Amino acid sequence: MENRARVLIDCEDAKGLVYKISKVFYDRGLNIDNNREVVDKERKRFFMRTVVTGIFDAKELQDELKSAVSKDAHIKVIEPKNKKIILMVTKESHALGDILVRHSDGELDADIECVISNHNVLGTLVSRFDIPFVCIPADGLSREEHESRVMATIDKFKFDYIVLAKYMRILTPTFVEAYETKIINIHHSFLPAFIGANPYKQAFERGVKIIGATAHFVTNDLDEGPIIAQDIIPVNHRLSWRDMQRAGSDGEKIVLSRALNLVLHDRVFVNGNKTVIF
Amino acid sequence: MENRARVLIDCEDAKGLVYKISKVFYDRGLNIDNNREVVDKERKRFFMRTVVTGIFDAKELQDELKSAVSKDAHIKVIEPKNKKIILMVTKESHALGDILVRHSDGELDADIECVISNHNVLGTLVSRFDIPFVCIPADGLSREEHESRVMATIDKFKFDYIVLAKYMRILTPTFVEAYETKIINIHHSFLPAFIGANPYKQAFERGVKIIGATAHFVTNDLDEGPIIAQDIIPVNHRLSWRDMQRAGSDGEKIVLSRALNLVLHDRVFVNGNKTVIF
Amino acid sequence: MENRARVLIDCEDAKGLVYKISKVFYDRGLNIDNNREVVDKERKRFFMRTVVTGIFDAKELQDELKSAVSKDAHIKVIEPKNKKIILMVTKESHALGDILVRHSDGELDADIECVISNHNVLGTLVSRFDIPFVCIPADGLSREEHESRVMATIDKFKFDYIVLAKYMRILTPTFVEAYETKIINIHHSFLPAFIGANPYKQAFERGVKIIGATAHFVTNDLDEGPIIAQDIIPVNHRLSWRDMQRAGSDGEKIVLSRALNLVLHDRVFVNGNKTVIF
Amino acid sequence: MENRARVLIDCEDAKGLVYKISKVFYDRGLNIDNNREVVDKERKRFFMRTVVTGIFDAKELQDELKSAVSKDAHIKVIEPKNKKIILMVTKESHALGDILVRHSDGELDADIECVISNHNVLGTLVSRFDIPFVCIPADGLSREEHESRVMATIDKFKFDYIVLAKYMRILTPTFVEAYETKIINIHHSFLPAFIGANPYKQAFERGVKIIGATAHFVTNDLDEGPIIAQDIIPVNHRLSWRDMQRAGSDGEKIVLSRALNLVLHDRVFVNGNKTVIF
Repeated sequence: MENRARVLIDCEDAKGLVYKISKVFYDRGLNIDNNREVVDKERKRFFMRTVVTGIFDAKELQDELKSAVSKDAHIKVIEPKNKKIILMVTKESHALGDILVRHSDGELDADIECVISNHNVLGTLVSRFDIPFVCIPADGLSREEHESRVMATIDKFKFDYIVLAKYMRILTPTFVEAYETKIINIHHSFLPAFIGANPYKQAFERGVKIIGATAHFVTNDLDEGPIIAQDIIPVNHRLSWRDMQRAGSDGEKIVLSRALNLVLHDRVFVNGNKTVIF
Repeated sequence: MENRARVLIDCEDAKGLVYKISKVFYDRGLNIDNNREVVDKERKRFFMRTVVTGIFDAKELQDELKSAVSKDAHIKVIEPKNKKIILMVTKESHALGDILVRHSDGELDADIECVISNHNVLGTLVSRFDIPFVCIPADGLSREEHESRVMATIDKFKFDYIVLAKYMRILTPTFVEAYETKIINIHHSFLPAFIGANPYKQAFERGVKIIGATAHFVTNDLDEGPIIAQDIIPVNHRLSWRDMQRAGSDGEKIVLSRALNLVLHDRVFVNGNKTVIF
Repeated sequence: MENRARVLIDCEDAKGLVYKISKVFYDRGLNIDNNREVVDKERKRFFMRTVVTGIFDAKELQDELKSAVSKDAHIKVIEPKNKKIILMVTKESHALGDILVRHSDGELDADIECVISNHNVLGTLVSRFDIPFVCIPADGLSREEHESRVMATIDKFKFDYIVLAKYMRILTPTFVEAYETKIINIHHSFLPAFIGANPYKQAFERGVKIIGATAHFVTNDLDEGPIIAQDIIPVNHRLSWRDMQRAGSDGEKIVLSRALNLVLHDRVFVNGNKTVIF
Repeated sequence: MENRARVLIDCEDAKGLVYKISKVFYDRGLNIDNNREVVDKERKRFFMRTVVTGIFDAKELQDELKSAVSKDAHIKVIEPKNKKIILMVTKESHALGDILVRHSDGELDADIECVISNHNVLGTLVSRFDIPFVCIPADGLSREEHESRVMATIDKFKFDYIVLAKYMRILTPTFVEAYETKIINIHHSFLPAFIGANPYKQAFERGVKIIGATAHFVTNDLDEGPIIAQDIIPVNHRLSWRDMQRAGSDGEKIVLSRALNLVLHDRVFVNGNKTVIF
């Protein structure tokens, strides 16, 4: 029976890579359904995402590609299936609600393991969708104590990604390192403008004519991880900062869901502090 | 014979302003062709731009409005005519060329008095349009010496606005104060992201997915004056920073010309460090 | 105690309107919190939306404005409160889900009376939000029979607007006339391009580089009613028509919710076959 | 010495194409600098654009690729050099001016052979740039007579593309067939909306909230050729149709120049009535 898999290759650039890789597919009689590649000339890295169909064993194909390319190459052969995600939220419902509706519709190639929040405001919304909601209040706890409780909950699950769908607490380096390259955040500004707290108020005070939203991987520099997707919304002098917040929330949820879909479809490579999106 | 004028009012907010102002128009039998107003509740300022037609003397109307509103109000009654502008450029032709073509077409409600540059690269382009080009090289001069030569040239002209159409030198406080609220700049980023030198390189290194351009009034904080117009251009991992620069230059010229048109049509009020655009 | 109301005026243009209207506010000591007006010179219509605060009776103010302006003027003084809406859907969840989440969050100034569908697919989603769901299958019924059942259901409710959140059946003139200017539809194309069935397939076959969505009032010309809001999404040769449909659905839901908010805030005037949006 | 060439392949889809093509490059020791490919599954066509560097003869490489792929394949190996273009215009300066400024700046990989117009309005602008301007008035001539004069002028030149930079006359099938796939037009609407005359007036009358511009190859169906690029500009009820025309002209020139650059860089494949853009 025919298989279908995504082949992801991230390796040092070299002459003949496309030939060597396509030879493996050719020799095995596989069909290339879709192929994208790019070379980062500065960093001398080669990135490729190919969808192949045919009769093959994923593990074997992966090993053979590794032999053909280089043993230092990062190569994954992924058979499409739902990934597991954990959502973290605080009080705002728009980004969470957008993901819940997409999930309930089967539009998202993901299973939501649970939703974790530092407040109970969103418990009702989550329960409407029959998804576990874990409220871990931070009151009276140090940042470290609170986070260790959150991590204890997270670690009960097997998961691929943690999605911060407007989780309004700053994460410690311990947390970020524990789940490196697995945390996706939506920041409610057009990064790198308005890093940090209350970007809409900052945007209002600066008098910008366009506001934005940025989905990115989380690293230990505040709002500085590799950017996955951005979008903008025009504003004008008639909007208060609360109006900007309201207008911006549409952009936030669309950008986060778009970034999440890219990640779930294995279309995102991290390349230093940037991303390659296929 | 019928007159037409733009009435611009910028004053402290108070109850009854619209009534008092429209009463002046009503009593004189003037027609309101177009009217926009807004209140900045934080700063308690009222802004209004009205186009009136009818039989009136501009000076008289202005005085009467002042009596009706408040002697502290900023009120101007402007009969539409071309404004005079001075362009300053360095080496890039796109923003300059866009303005020259619009001007030659009669699309711009402006007369270009002269183009000043610190290089002679653009002399040929300017001369094609029969407009005076003054090259003031900075080589061997201190910033102050160079600027005083530029100012000596500027001061030979009567003008309403100085348009920095990619003038790549930083201006001193002396210069900026001399022409306060009269200098319009195009900055090649989506401010406040990437303030300062080479924003495209900064954008490339940050790995953003959208780049932008910002037209603003120049104040003594670098790239911090009131924003008039902004626009964006989507980019991706395939673009080098030079590609971003090329792609961005389309945005720059369109945003600058749009901002210039807004200013020439008296549609821009400066409101603290922001603008009101009607 | 202070009242707040939206004053909506739609009348024949005439000299002195702003004066006469603002005089009524002034004489009663009301404060203008926000004011927008426009004249359609072709159709000689004047439109105004003003938010006033102060001590007044809405009915009295309305009558007085009518005396001041003209007895043919359409004048409404509306005290902000939730409007009642009925949603109609078929099988797609994105537009419906977006409205349900906004509603559950209290973001929408509306009460959803019920959701009517010709299929039961979306019943589960609606029930998650504790909102009545009425399934009226069309199988075996003539268009007229089906619609009369739908109308019987609708007529059990008091409502301000019917929102077609991807209701995929064509409405008869009888239906449209029964609820004139009360029906809002989202059409999944950038009207007037791709009127009628399966616009994404049409767009795919035409090879466009941008797709769109249009929210409009429903009239008896197919997809021809006054447009309230539009938005676009860039596409390229790599997308199948189903990919375009998926990409487009984000635009659809955002445009419909934006249009709905404009209508709920009384910001939309119908002006012939167009709209004025304040 | 190192060569650089663009390899363009357009052929029936088949298994092993990437392998066979990359094998040719590999065997000759060529480096792939940039590679994009796509399969149109409906039409079963394979498209590839690869930039290769190394030591090779273009003609030889082309022949060898043809042997490796299929003798029916369309394969071109193009060494980058300026293409020759002819501009056709009527009275509007914006699209023409944009191309002239880019050309004078060396930004455009093209030599402008001449500008042909049915009016002399733009003669002055063209002469500023020392480019031949040929005015061929249509007064008193039948469409066929006028066109045969235009074609006589065109045929004096060797050229790659004819760019209709707001040429406002309809072309006959004779003309279009004579220069098939060589004519690029800018249509001042978001096709397929508002085909034909005065799209801005049509857009105004329809009350759309967004207007657009479309660059496309010209075929014998009016405004129906393969689309290369599109862009949009938001509008509102305050704009007259002349305001829309003015606002739209910015979009027109940017879209036309973007499409022209794509074509000059050999990034556009015609695929039936669509395009593939790399």
